[in-house]
Formats: sequence, C-alpha cells, structure tokens
Amino acid sequence: MADQDTAPANDDGLDTATEPVAAEAKVVFTPSGKRGAFAAGTTVLEAARALGVDLDSVCGGRGICGRCQCKLSEGDFSKFGVKSKTDHLSGVNAVEERYKSKRGMKDGRRLGCQSKLLGDVVIDVPEESQVHKQVVRKRAEVRNIEIDPAVRLYYVEVAEPDMHHPSGDLERVMTALNEQWDITGLERADLPVLQSLQKALREGEWKITVAVRWDKKIVHIWPGFHDKAFGAAVDIGSTTMSVHLTDLQNGEVVASVGAMNPQIRFGEDLMSRVSYVMMNPGGDQEMTQVVRETLGYLLSQAGLEASVDVTDILEIVLVGNPIMHHLMLGIDPTELGWAPFALATNQPVRIRASELGLEGKTNPGARAYFLPCVAGHVGADAAAVVLSEGPQYRDEMTLVVDVGTNAEIVYGNKERLLACSSPTGPALEGAQISSGQRAAPGAIERVRIDKETLEPRFRVIGGDLWSDNEAFPETVKRTGVTGICGSGIIEVMAELYLAGVITRDGIIDGSLAAKTDRIVPEGRTFSYVLHRGEPEIRVTQADVRAIQLAKAALYAGAQLLIDKIGKPPERVVLAGAFGSHIDTKYAMILGLIPDCPLDMVASVGNAAGTGARIALLNVKSRDEIREVITRIEKIETAVEPRFQEHFVDAMAIPNKTAPFPNLRKEVELPEPKQATDGDGGDDSRRRRRRRAQ
Amino acid sequence: MADQDTAPANDDGLDTATEPVAAEAKVVFTPSGKRGAFAAGTTVLEAARALGVDLDSVCGGRGICGRCQCKLSEGDFSKFGVKSKTDHLSGVNAVEERYKSKRGMKDGRRLGCQSKLLGDVVIDVPEESQVHKQVVRKRAEVRNIEIDPAVRLYYVEVAEPDMHHPSGDLERVMTALNEQWDITGLERADLPVLQSLQKALREGEWKITVAVRWDKKIVHIWPGFHDKAFGAAVDIGSTTMSVHLTDLQNGEVVASVGAMNPQIRFGEDLMSRVSYVMMNPGGDQEMTQVVRETLGYLLSQAGLEASVDVTDILEIVLVGNPIMHHLMLGIDPTELGWAPFALATNQPVRIRASELGLEGKTNPGARAYFLPCVAGHVGADAAAVVLSEGPQYRDEMTLVVDVGTNAEIVYGNKERLLACSSPTGPALEGAQISSGQRAAPGAIERVRIDKETLEPRFRVIGGDLWSDNEAFPETVKRTGVTGICGSGIIEVMAELYLAGVITRDGIIDGSLAAKTDRIVPEGRTFSYVLHRGEPEIRVTQADVRAIQLAKAALYAGAQLLIDKIGKPPERVVLAGAFGSHIDTKYAMILGLIPDCPLDMVASVGNAAGTGARIALLNVKSRDEIREVITRIEKIETAVEPRFQEHFVDAMAIPNKTAPFPNLRKEVELPEPKQATDGDGGDDSRRRRRRRAQ
Repeated sequence: MADQDTAPANDDGLDTATEPVAAEAKVVFTPSGKRGAFAAGTTVLEAARALGVDLDSVCGGRGICGRCQCKLSEGDFSKFGVKSKTDHLSGVNAVEERYKSKRGMKDGRRLGCQSKLLGDVVIDVPEESQVHKQVVRKRAEVRNIEIDPAVRLYYVEVAEPDMHHPSGDLERVMTALNEQWDITGLERADLPVLQSLQKALREGEWKITVAVRWDKKIVHIWPGFHDKAFGAAVDIGSTTMSVHLTDLQNGEVVASVGAMNPQIRFGEDLMSRVSYVMMNPGGDQEMTQVVRETLGYLLSQAGLEASVDVTDILEIVLVGNPIMHHLMLGIDPTELGWAPFALATNQPVRIRASELGLEGKTNPGARAYFLPCVAGHVGADAAAVVLSEGPQYRDEMTLVVDVGTNAEIVYGNKERLLACSSPTGPALEGAQISSGQRAAPGAIERVRIDKETLEPRFRVIGGDLWSDNEAFPETVKRTGVTGICGSGIIEVMAELYLAGVITRDGIIDGSLAAKTDRIVPEGRTFSYVLHRGEPEIRVTQADVRAIQLAKAALYAGAQLLIDKIGKPPERVVLAGAFGSHIDTKYAMILGLIPDCPLDMVASVGNAAGTGARIALLNVKSRDEIREVITRIEKIETAVEPRFQEHFVDAMAIPNKTAPFPNLRKEVELPEPKQATDGDGGDDSRRRRRRRAQ
Repeated sequence: MADQDTAPANDDGLDTATEPVAAEAKVVFTPSGKRGAFAAGTTVLEAARALGVDLDSVCGGRGICGRCQCKLSEGDFSKFGVKSKTDHLSGVNAVEERYKSKRGMKDGRRLGCQSKLLGDVVIDVPEESQVHKQVVRKRAEVRNIEIDPAVRLYYVEVAEPDMHHPSGDLERVMTALNEQWDITGLERADLPVLQSLQKALREGEWKITVAVRWDKKIVHIWPGFHDKAFGAAVDIGSTTMSVHLTDLQNGEVVASVGAMNPQIRFGEDLMSRVSYVMMNPGGDQEMTQVVRETLGYLLSQAGLEASVDVTDILEIVLVGNPIMHHLMLGIDPTELGWAPFALATNQPVRIRASELGLEGKTNPGARAYFLPCVAGHVGADAAAVVLSEGPQYRDEMTLVVDVGTNAEIVYGNKERLLACSSPTGPALEGAQISSGQRAAPGAIERVRIDKETLEPRFRVIGGDLWSDNEAFPETVKRTGVTGICGSGIIEVMAELYLAGVITRDGIIDGSLAAKTDRIVPEGRTFSYVLHRGEPEIRVTQADVRAIQLAKAALYAGAQLLIDKIGKPPERVVLAGAFGSHIDTKYAMILGLIPDCPLDMVASVGNAAGTGARIALLNVKSRDEIREVITRIEKIETAVEPRFQEHFVDAMAIPNKTAPFPNLRKEVELPEPKQATDGDGGDDSRRRRRRRAQ
C-alpha cells in the first residue's frame, strides 16, 4: 500500500538527457509575476518557494502528490527579457513518468518538483496548483474565499528509531515536520494519534501523512501518502438542518444533504421548544440527543453520497440560532426564553467533534467550531449570514434578512450595523399553510392570475410549462401537482392582491364569488381554488392570515432597525432556504421587505450555510466575524414599543403607512377597497392563538 | 446554600469603633521582611498585595475564605522603627465576627482583608496563609516543594446580564476574573462548564467559584464559595498501583490507597505482558481496560476515605515504567518488547482524565498528566524518582535505585546522569517467595540469627517485641505470624549468610542439619525453618535463588552505570515501596547495592510516588524534569556485553569480585566456604526458567 504511493527520491544530479543552457536561469512565474535567477539544476518548486510563489505541494517535492503541476509558456517574453523554450526545463524523469502513468496529467503540464531549470523560462501556475486558491462564488458581487483551513496534510519521511540515541516515535515525526515542512510550534498530538502512531509508521515504512491543526496539534496520521481532507459546514435551523461536506483542499462542496430538525416534535417554533424544557425537566437533553443523532446521520449520508471516508472528515463548523446553538451544545436554553435573554457564551465554541456525540461520524481528532451568537435572540446563523453577505464592507445601506422560522435581520453598512430577530413562524417555509409543502417536484412555485377572469396559471417545480399549456398535464404526470411551496405562496398571494381578490387588509373578497367559481365559501370566510384535482389546492383565508402575520413580523423587525439608522435601505438581501427561489418583486408587493429599488434586491439562498463554509475554509474569517460581531448593535424587538406599531401597519398589503415609491414605479398596485364580505374579526382571533403558542 | 457562604461586602469607610492614629501607617510583614507605608484605612491584605507579600486569598478579600489570616506582633521593633500595638489595627468588624463564629480562628489571628491599618504594625504571615507555602518533607536533605498547582480556585462576583448590553454569561465571568483577580489570558471554558454555568450563576446569586487551569482555561464552576481542590498522584507499578489523593492548596496527602496491578493475571513481569499482547491480538486493550478500572476504583476509594467529592478531584499526575505508561494510555506496548525499544513518545502526555476512562471518577474538567519516559526501558517512574531525589543538584556521585518488578537505576551528579533499568522480577516485593507476602500486620520484617545456635528471633509488622520475648505470643495474637515481607526476606537472607547457613554462592548448607533442626531437607536441597506454627515459615533454597537473581540483576545494572562514569558511588538512595522498611546495612551485606559508606545509604520509600506528587503540586517541576531527562544518558542493559559478566559476579553474596571495603569496616563478613551439600546445579535450572518467562 505504502509502496504504491511512494516514489523513489528525487535525483540529486542533473538529468543526463538535457544539458543546462547556462549556469544561471531566469524564471518568471505567472500569474504572480514573481521572478528571479537560480543556478541551473534548481527545480521549479524550489525556485517557487524561494520566491514565495504560491505553488502547492503535499508530498514535499517527492513526485507523489501532483499538486505542484505547472506549465511552461513558450515564446519570447521581451517585457521580462526572457526567451522561454520547452528544452529550458529538464526532461520528464522516471518519477514524473511514474506519476503521469498512474494519475495522468493534462497536456503540457509538468511536475514542478521534478522539472529543473536549465535556461530562462516563464512558468504558469494554474489555479488548482495554488495553495491559496480561491473558491469562485456564483455571484460576482461577493468576494472570493481564500482557502486557508485549520487542518492541513503533510507528507513526511520519518527517521527510524535508534537504540543508542533513544527518542520517541512522535518526537521523530515532529522533527520531520520541522525539517521537511518548517513547522516549528508543534505542541502535541491527540491521544488517538499516539495510539495509532507506531503501527502507522511501520506500515508506511516510515513514510506517513500527518494532519496538523493550526500547525500546532497533530490530529491524525495515515501510513504512506494521503491527500483527502474534508470538513462539514452545518446549518441547524429550527425546521431544517443541512450539511455541506466540503473538500478542505479545494473548497468544493462534494455533498449537500438536509433533513427536518427532529426537535419539531417537541415544538414547532423556538419558544415552544423552550417551553417544553421549562415544563419537562430533562427535555433539553432529549432535544440535544435527537439533534445530535440527526447531525450524525447527515454526516454519514453525506459521506456515503460523496464516497468520503469517516476518518477524512476532520472538521465541522456549525451555525444556528441561539436556541439551536444551546441545544446542540447541550446547554439548557431556558435563559433564552425570558428577559434578559442571557446567552451562556457569545464567543465561538471550539470543542472536539466527539463532545457533540459524533464518535464514529468523523475522524477521532476532528474538532467542531460553533460560530459565535450575536446576542440572546440573534444567533450564529446571523453571524454566518453577515460573513457571507459582508454588509460591513459596503457603502450603501444594506438590509440582510435571513428568513426561517425565526427571521434574523441585519441592517447597516461599513459605518454601523444593527441586528435583531423576529418570530415569523414557519409559514414562509410552507408550514401552517393548508396546501403548503417543502420545495420539491410537484410543488407550485410560480403563479399568475388574470386580472379580468381571475383564472390562474402556474408552474410546478420540475416542470417548464405553465398550467395553461396543453402539454402541461403530460409534464406533471410523474410528480402530480401536490401543493404550494414557500415562493409559490408569496406569488399567489401577491397575484391575488394585484387582481383584487385579496384586499389590502388581507381579506379574500367574497363578493367576487359571483364573478368566478374559483372563490368559494368556507365557513364564515372564502377560499380561492388554485388547482382543481387530487388534491385540490386552495388558498384559504387562514393561509392568507398566516402569511400576513409572518411577513408583518419580518417587516416590523426590519423597520425597527431602519428607524434606528434613520436611512432607508439602498440594497436588500433575502436569504434562507426559502429565499432561494423567491421572486423578489412579489416579496416586495406583499410587503415582506421594505421598499427599495427592485434591481437592488437579491435573493441569495442559504447564506448561513455559505457563511459556515467560509468559516470552514478560511480561518481568518473566524477572527473577522468575531470582531464584526462585537461592533453590531443588538436590538431586542420584544422590548421595543414601536415594534407592535410597525407590526400592525405591516399586516396590510403591502403596508398601511409605507408608500413603497420604488415598487410603484414598476408595479401598479390596486387602490385600497373594502371587502364587501369576510370577517375582519378573524384577525384578532388568530393573533390570540399566536401568542398562546 | 450560596447564602451560607456569602458575607456582606467589606465596608468602605473606617470602622467607627477605632480611630486612625496617624494619616499614614507603616507596616512590616514577617517573615518576608517586606515593608511599606500606607494611608490609614488600607487593609492588611491590600498592603500585602501592594508589597508583593505572599498572603493568600481565595475569596478576593470578602471575609469568606479565611485564607488571609495573620497576626499582629506587639512590641517595639526598633530595628524596623515600628511600635506595633494591637489597637493599630481596626477592631473586629461584623464580617470578621461572622467568619470567626462560623469557622473559628486561633487566638490573636485576624482576617487580613478586614483589618485596617490605623497605625504602625508588624504583621506575621503564618505559613498556612502563604500562597506559596512549602510542603515540609520528612527528610531534611531534600528540598521543599513550593505549592504551585496547575489548577487554582477563584471566587468572583459576576455582573448580571443586561438586555440592553447583551453579553454571554461566560464573558461576564471572564471579565470578573480579570477585574477581581487580574487574570488576563483566559482562552476558553470546557464544554461541561458552559453546560452548567447558567444554573450555577443563578443558584449562587452571581457569586461563584471558578477552577482555572494555567490561568487559561475554566475547567469547573461552583455556585457560591468553594475551597476544595484535590489532585491524585498515581504510581502504576508492574505489581502494585498506588494513589495519593492530595490537597492542591496545602500539599497534604489526605488519603493513600493501593492495590495489586490487575494486569498480573496476563503476566507477572513486563516481558510476559508484552508477550501476551504479541500472542493475543487485542490483549493490550484488555490490559488497558483492567488497569484503568483499577485506577478508577482507587480514586473512588481514596475519595471515600478522605470524604473528598469526585468533582473536587481536578488533576491526576501519573508515573510508571514505559510498558505501564503505554498500557495505561491505550498504546500497544509491542514496540517496547524488542530492539530498538521505541517509545511512542518521550514527551509528557497531557490529556483529559476522561480519555483514561475516568468519567465519574474525577471532575469532568480534570486533566491527566503522564510524566515523560526517559527511554524505551526507563520509565516515567524513573523520571519521578529523579524529580524526588534530585541527583542532578548534587556534587557527590549518587546512585538512585528504584526497586520494583523492574528496577530503574539512575547514577551520577550535577555534571552527568546515566539511567538504565534491570529486570529484577517481583521477588524483592515478596512475590515468588514461598512464605512471601506484602508488608502488612503479621509479616516478619526484622530477623536476627544467633551465629552459635542458629536460632532465629524476629519481629512482625504491628508488634514491638522480638519473638524471643515471653510476651511475644500475646502481641501477635490478633495478627498471627503470616509470612515474610520484602525487608524481612533481605534480613533473613543476610543473617543466614552472616551465620554461615547460606554460603557465598547462595547454597543453604545442608551439613548444618546435624547442628540444628532448623535446617531441614526439602527434595534435593535444604530449607531453614524460621517460624514453627500455622503457617510454618521457611526460607527455601528456591527463595534464596529468587532473591539472588533479583539482587544480581539490580547490582549488575548499577555496576554498568558506575563503569560508564568511572567513579564509585558516594551516596546510595534505595527507593520503592519495598525500600521503605529495608535496613540498608542488610541490603549491602546481600550485595543488593554496591559498596558505599553505610551512613550515605538512605532508604526513601516510594520516591516515584513522591515525584508524582511534586509534579502535581508544582507545575514548574514538570518543565524541570523534562529538561533533566533530555540530559540523561540512556543505557540499554540488554545490549551491554558487560551486563552478563556483572550479573554472574553479583550472584555471589555480597559479590564474587567486588571487595566492599566500606561494608567490611562495619560488618564482619564470613570467609568464603564451600557447602558440603546442596545442589549448585539448581542455579542453572532456575536461570533457564527465568529466561523462559
């Protein structure tokens, strides 16, 4: 095994096949532009290191890892004063040939550690050969992430023990890391490393790969050469949990898996879970256990999906709201259930993954890092969203809203940042809606309603056709039309409002039942039939109320922060699993978000998960967000008298008082009218229920 | 609960009962001699701190802990220019009265934190009020230990949370530690601390006691005031294990408990245990499990004995030979079974106690520290013996021998130190001896044999009378005479040799059977009947051989080191549980130790355990021994050709070639004679058996 991955050492002399052109060779590296002159016979990797060029290597120049691949650029580079020719590098030697035949290399690529400078050359370092390669993000406006994880792999050749100069095997490994990789500050090794060390050294014939954390602690050892290291970015939402298994060496997400948060059975929203703990001693431990079990399950699933071995998972970064944070860490969340909402800690929590009950789900040396919570009601998920969206770097006033069962809201710019949370409930995620469902094939996600006929047309997830297309029945044959997802609910409500079916106060106008059979009575209120079939999909008055309550809570929280800053938003970022498919125009028509130029509203999906991934891949970002958090002003909506006022105004569509001038430039909103039927009293009844939750 | 231990805060103003004599007061502290002048009204504790006087306090001057007790010395101290009078301190206030009535104080004692300077005084700080109090050792020649443990307790009053300035409970604890105790570098808290923190703060009404490790990590928190902190010094011998539960605040051993090492059932000596692992895959894990279980049991027993709560055990320091070291840590010891005897590590191992399977046996935040092994065949027990006996500080050539199933031998002085180990087997601990037993009441420990009549007299442990005293039967009525302990065996063999019963070659002289019925045939050899009764206690030829083999191995190892240095020992220290009762003269007569002036031979008992206790109580000693170890030259007896030669010579009593001039000055040794009977062939038969073990 070790033999397969081990190659003969680099030749000391020059290759006989090629002769140096000159005693000294100039080399220019691109894209960095770094350049220097070296004695003929110097390897490209040695030259790169001497010049501080960002050229990767895991095996330390032994022709095993293939990380130092580079390409000679042929031609006359007059601006560098260099005539770069192919034969200015030594020919392919046995080591390189061996690597090439085993692993393959792109045309023109050379191993930097085996290629010697014989004359002047220009060497291009492709992005994948850079240590600090950057992960390209989908959206151009957000900065890239530089890969700089907490755990790195080092291949070393270790001296054998000598009875006459006794030393521990571990100490010889440390010496090798020092001599071969210049790692000086090594403090110790985890106990499991000590337990497996002697066997690994002998199995690997004194060649091993070492996983080192912060260049200080040895956390794992593999016999021979090993180049797999993964981490998991974990987002624990009140309703859903997700795990993004990520390659720590190139930043790629190799598997993304999700599941419902099993704590739902103890209470749908956060406060009901805290109540459960207050009423049931030990209830916190039950909830801790189930959420940890599910995390373990998700890690296993992600590993299976991407064929990643458990021992190659070396780090976990977690985010979640304060109550999820406490419950995952095994801290009773009771104090978060009442004023003054005291967190156990507002610093990041750094522990072993095994302390989260993840034995057997990660490497025994894996560590877990929980991002810091911002305040007792603004969680590590908000911190992650800030890390991902970077409002702290912007000039324009930016509103970042992370929609979940609890909405986390951040507002401000590089001068000043405020944060709060608002209890929206799970309606925006499709829960508590009569035909609501998670975003999955068969769910209605786009809706249009004809203003004259009040007839609907819609599209479902997984189908490209609108429902008024004659081929539509064929496209949904496999999935059926099963319900409405979060973005579908926003659209149907906004369209019903634009068509005059729903009044500004959120009443389904029963008088229109005379005009269309889509409007049908249901008890004392009316419903709108969106799809006739099995199941029949309706929008009920209760659905409308649930969305109104959710969007009003969200808007009121945002408005509170806008009040404090005293300037309207110039940019709005809508985050959350919910937010990834939403049409931001409809969100604004409903008054979910405040008025703002529509082209400055973006929907970014799971920004909390992205923030967790940034913290996983780049350790400096952890210090950065920690520092930013200390500057964030925390607003507690529960004690702000204006919150209730904003909430009442925001119950109207889009809003009772806010004029929404930017929106009106793009969309013609209906004039306020009074419904001729329907039951306004319903509103107060629902509100009572909500408080009782 | 918290209320009981919490006192009202210190008054800010002066006591009304007493008026200051002057605006400024001179204070002289004894024994340090530190002095200064302070504004009247300054407390004695404040003055002590300002002057850097070593005056303890756990509660931070709140009159709760009573650690700052001191005493005013009345009189005219002309050398200080101070007239010290009782009324130059403020009177006993309510806080001090309360402490006095609850806890009691010696006459004349005052609480330094409550006593204010009103005029010039001389204040004596008794030893128990010093932070860096020294543990007085029994023997004057060994330096004292300054108490400076890794874990310290701090009582703090923590700010309550404020919703408008949200911060974590932990962060407010850290602020309190910083402000009230000047602890700045705090890095984090263990997860169990986070889990219990919020409850403890509220239960203690924002007053808690914090256990801080290295002033960096919070490892435990108690509500209210708490002043108990213990550590365990653990010595894992091949045959026996011992735990010394020690008060980390005053260095006192509160309980010492011991047990047989349960690994004995896998093999009596070290090599047979390694063989067991080689023959039985997974055998190392079995042995790890049983030794950890026994350690857990001993910790529980020690806690019960001293009424120490499990959560008050905050640290464990372990020592043992390399194989015990590996097996306790869960490291396969196979590599220690063959050349080059590679240790997994030769650095100290710092882990959590829970990683040794000690959950529930110590505080969840307890750490374990295993002293470093010196080499693959010289263990952490030898390191501990060096720490305890300090040959590295001495001018005279010192031989330190730690007798156990494996003897660890250190030789040298402050210029140069050598170490080796030698496989003595368990005979010197009373095992493999026909009537051998552990040192316990009823065991024969002292023996004299009349050179004329060959009649013995002896004393047993627990009795003051010799067996020829007519009251002797009465004194042993309760215990009986049950066997011979290690020191008894040494004495009886040496006395038999002096009386001519045992020849220089170790043969029980059968010809003397004609002279006394104490000498009886047993197969082809003879035995000496030491005690007639139930059980009958004999010294058999096999017993003599077992002791010869053991002492020869020990002597040969020592001689090897003496050869290397080229100078004879000027001082001999005999350590080991065995060594604590031994009469060093008899040890030398037998040739267990090399010749040396008899008054320079000391028997010091369990020096390895003492070394462990030093490392437990004084963290600097850990760095010290670590550094000393790097300087020790390690000698591997197995590959030293002269070892076998020395061994053969040392089989004779006291030795075939060494003249023992110092011994001969004090004791008349018999002239060599040949036994007229007995079986010399026995020797080689035993040797074969020994090798087969």
